[in-house]
Amino acid sequence: MFRIFNSAVLTFILISVVCKMAQSARIDELLNLDYLRKSLVRQEDTIIFYLIERAKYPRNLALYEEKCVPESSDSLFDFFLKESEALQAKAGRYTSPEENAFFPDKLPAPLLQSLNSSTQILHPAGASINVNDKISHFYLKKLLPLITSEGDDGNYAATAVSDLDCLQALSRRIHLGKFVAEVKFRDAPADYTPAVHAKNREALMELLTFPSVEKAIKKRVAKKAMIFGQDVDLQENDTNGKYKVNPSVVSQLYEEWVMPLTKFVEVEYLLRHLE
Amino acid sequence: MFRIFNSAVLTFILISVVCKMAQSARIDELLNLDYLRKSLVRQEDTIIFYLIERAKYPRNLALYEEKCVPESSDSLFDFFLKESEALQAKAGRYTSPEENAFFPDKLPAPLLQSLNSSTQILHPAGASINVNDKISHFYLKKLLPLITSEGDDGNYAATAVSDLDCLQALSRRIHLGKFVAEVKFRDAPADYTPAVHAKNREALMELLTFPSVEKAIKKRVAKKAMIFGQDVDLQENDTNGKYKVNPSVVSQLYEEWVMPLTKFVEVEYLLRHLE
Repeated sequence: MFRIFNSAVLTFILISVVCKMAQSARIDELLNLDYLRKSLVRQEDTIIFYLIERAKYPRNLALYEEKCVPESSDSLFDFFLKESEALQAKAGRYTSPEENAFFPDKLPAPLLQSLNSSTQILHPAGASINVNDKISHFYLKKLLPLITSEGDDGNYAATAVSDLDCLQALSRRIHLGKFVAEVKFRDAPADYTPAVHAKNREALMELLTFPSVEKAIKKRVAKKAMIFGQDVDLQENDTNGKYKVNPSVVSQLYEEWVMPLTKFVEVEYLLRHLE
Repeated sequence: MFRIFNSAVLTFILISVVCKMAQSARIDELLNLDYLRKSLVRQEDTIIFYLIERAKYPRNLALYEEKCVPESSDSLFDFFLKESEALQAKAGRYTSPEENAFFPDKLPAPLLQSLNSSTQILHPAGASINVNDKISHFYLKKLLPLITSEGDDGNYAATAVSDLDCLQALSRRIHLGKFVAEVKFRDAPADYTPAVHAKNREALMELLTFPSVEKAIKKRVAKKAMIFGQDVDLQENDTNGKYKVNPSVVSQLYEEWVMPLTKFVEVEYLLRHLE
């Protein structure tokens, strides 16, 4: 009995030590602009993989429009999203400052001790910024019709899983703007402080906008959509311009929604920085 | 009141009709060998995308080894997998004959009427074949150590989501063997009946094995792993042989587990066909 107890305590201590070490390494990463940039580039692959997977299924409108839970106005998709977030909260997802829930109210506590629970990198007033309502709006209303065919194949569960993957990947990417803003502010507070004091959104937006970088991102994501969305076979590939998701739609996604919303998050975060 | 009722009834009828039409189109597809082959090729992309995503996180052993639920021996991963399947069952996943649960006992009923509920394509004795225990064993014990680095970053929820994506994609691919076997049997019953009557597994395995096709599949999935797992940038890409998942591991996955298990499902299905 003593030995079992002893070994459990040792395991717990070991995991705690490993957790603390990993946590401190993670803080260093999240305060490094070069790491953040690489992470944003890597996340493009994730977003495009998930969009290609979502495009396998038709629109499946009933998933979003049919009421499915008695005494609630929730669609099957609302229900699935809420329940998935509650489950992932138990697995510790929202203890990470990089994650933001679509339905953040009343999420259950994690079942295991988490790495991230005491990580405090962000300014407290800005840490709670959450633009997921805007993200789910453009995703469901604007983007889905551009990447899926009309129709209903009844694969509602697989479709909902795929939507959740896309939404969480987009949310993670866009809210990384909080860390980008934090690091930029730490690196050059004098550049941002006047506009923050004056609550001048336009000036901040200008400080955070680099047209040539944005142009390169739009080109790169289109190129990735071509490479990842082609039909690969053993012969030399000739795609005939056919891709699983239209590359220009992926550029449009970044131009109209991902980059503007990331900068919106950055501006809102900076505005709260002197609170 | 009457009008509201009326419009609800009309919507229900409309959805039912659309569902029936889609259902019948789906049966045609699942009984077409050419469609099944294309589907297997498309599923390679899905599997490789999800493996690349899983490889973003380190091994995260605590997810699989720590007990997390009082009065149960379940790990956090077991808990997550069971709860995810229960949630997806409510969204109708397991009414599809293409889907097989890892924990099939006591799954809840779907909340919405499903397309697939009355689809009966497979021979009843073979429809219930489920090799998910073998799939989760090779995935967790053999494959994960080959595609992830040692370590623990505490991202247990994201890791579990990613594992679930991989497991479901592999399970869907391998269990498609039931449909392949059904179609092959329907196309040439005389080829298979003697071996089925004699319960001769070896003879059936030989009838279902095409070494040149298997060799081409192994080559193709390695090529896909190179294309999807490279770092894409705007210059000409030079990967230096660096990919997010080792292409030869993807070949190995197909050679050692995916193709043998698919054929195992096909043989078991055929053996039950005359029951």
